[in-house]
Amino acid sequence: MAIFRSTRNTHDDPGYQRTSERMFELARLQPGFLGVHSVRDEDGNGITLSYWTDEASIRAWRAHDEHGVVRESGRRSWYERYMVQIARVERGYGWDAASEHAAAVPMTA
Amino acid sequence: MAIFRSTRNTHDDPGYQRTSERMFELARLQPGFLGVHSVRDEDGNGITLSYWTDEASIRAWRAHDEHGVVRESGRRSWYERYMVQIARVERGYGWDAASEHAAAVPMTA
Repeated sequence: MAIFRSTRNTHDDPGYQRTSERMFELARLQPGFLGVHSVRDEDGNGITLSYWTDEASIRAWRAHDEHGVVRESGRRSWYERYMVQIARVERGYGWDAASEHAAAVPMTA
Repeated sequence: MAIFRSTRNTHDDPGYQRTSERMFELARLQPGFLGVHSVRDEDGNGITLSYWTDEASIRAWRAHDEHGVVRESGRRSWYERYMVQIARVERGYGWDAASEHAAAVPMTA
């Protein structure tokens, strides 16, 4: 999985939202993509978790041309700072109020 | 590291914020704790990343009495659903607008 922690600057750029959505769409089309979860709070702090079948898929996504161009835009226009970490999911479990009990969940999404 | 993805229910409970802050304080006191990053958006979707020196520290935190009691409150009163994943950070890098370049960062916080 890839962890992307970021802080947006205070410029209100309509291009950011559009590009962000485009990146989610594009990521979903990549080989090895399993899923993505992204949250950003009112202060501009965001965490995006993306899940992939293997590390080669993550490297390929990092090397994707359009993704690279957008990364430049991110540095130039949208982010104060960000951090990327690559991690290996080892186990997981979930809980849902509807079923009222915890259960093992897929570790990869 | 531990990944906690959660969705709050729509009940506006002042006890939630207080207890959440208490859990951050308590986690910081645990052996092996390295750092925590937490974000929740306006729709109630949250991601909390906590970093630990080793898996034994994560297990000990999970087994902590007060944490266990709070987990019960979370299921009963605050969450629609949540998911926990344990992952091993393998590498990381960061970028900061102030320094205008990317750099390797500690992988553990």
